[in-house]
Amino acid sequence: MAGRRSGTPDTRGEIIAAAREAFASQGFDRTSLRSIARSAGVDPALIHHYFDGKDALFVAAMDLPLSPRERLAEALDVPRDQAGVAVIRTMLTVWDDEAYQPSLLGVLRSLTSGTAAGTELRTAFVEGMIFPALRQEIEGGVSERAVGLVGSQIIGLIVARYLIGVEPLVSMDSEELAQLVGPTIQRYIDL
Amino acid sequence: MAGRRSGTPDTRGEIIAAAREAFASQGFDRTSLRSIARSAGVDPALIHHYFDGKDALFVAAMDLPLSPRERLAEALDVPRDQAGVAVIRTMLTVWDDEAYQPSLLGVLRSLTSGTAAGTELRTAFVEGMIFPALRQEIEGGVSERAVGLVGSQIIGLIVARYLIGVEPLVSMDSEELAQLVGPTIQRYIDL
Repeated sequence: MAGRRSGTPDTRGEIIAAAREAFASQGFDRTSLRSIARSAGVDPALIHHYFDGKDALFVAAMDLPLSPRERLAEALDVPRDQAGVAVIRTMLTVWDDEAYQPSLLGVLRSLTSGTAAGTELRTAFVEGMIFPALRQEIEGGVSERAVGLVGSQIIGLIVARYLIGVEPLVSMDSEELAQLVGPTIQRYIDL
Repeated sequence: MAGRRSGTPDTRGEIIAAAREAFASQGFDRTSLRSIARSAGVDPALIHHYFDGKDALFVAAMDLPLSPRERLAEALDVPRDQAGVAVIRTMLTVWDDEAYQPSLLGVLRSLTSGTAAGTELRTAFVEGMIFPALRQEIEGGVSERAVGLVGSQIIGLIVARYLIGVEPLVSMDSEELAQLVGPTIQRYIDL
């Protein structure tokens, strides 16, 4: 078909790039594989060749220019009593970056959409990427209760600052915010 | 038309009840005034008679069997050093109640949907109901920074426990959770 190419070494990457943009701007539910294929200029069948359905493509598209898990692991290579501020500082650095923010917002909207897909994605994203880093990389270890509570404050800060837009959280300097919220994370870690 | 009634004293209430159910089960975006009219058994024109569009109907439908603002105000009638636990305890009591939870989840999904309607609703719900209670009812007053930070932990706990379903937060006893998260709220209040 005119304008459609068959598989090349870059096809998979182009599909992922188109998917990332579509998921970010329209959310998971409203994005179709057909529209992604159109944006990528490929035949829809090629998407099925590379990915086992929309969920699998979304998970691949979430593999952002960075790996949240690796970034967190790196940030958590500090003494235990500095872990709280380090977690928030890293989270804000990643989310403040305009290269990542649209994709991350797309993921977040899908996570909170309350659909079955949202449940799948929670497992892939929150439990697959963020929580293991907290569990494994904090010096001395943390309880599951602590992981959940840390997660709740991280999720709330992200929703308030980036999704809903609660002031003065939106305008605050990220380091000031890390110093204010860090002790909350630290207290949960030490529970 | 058969099955459709013209306005009666209860019509407004029946429209609101139908709207509440529709918004809760389908979210704001996917709910149409036409489908609400059908559920309520009234002519769509009657909805426009009582409400100035879908946003206005949603705001009316959010006027839950309880007023979040009044409930919070009541809960905050305690000494300042008990406000943190009181806020979380009240929030969990309301959200754990199966009579309110579906409606509240509908509101939350709409707030996080990232659409223009979400922005409108944020103003109506978060800033119109929850934040003023925090601002006005805490003995001695709080800073705007504190209001935002308290909001972030409340939102995150709600999203984690009720929307995403993060364990062990889902299974935890509400009083235990209030005792664990209360000190976070208290620290923000005292910042």
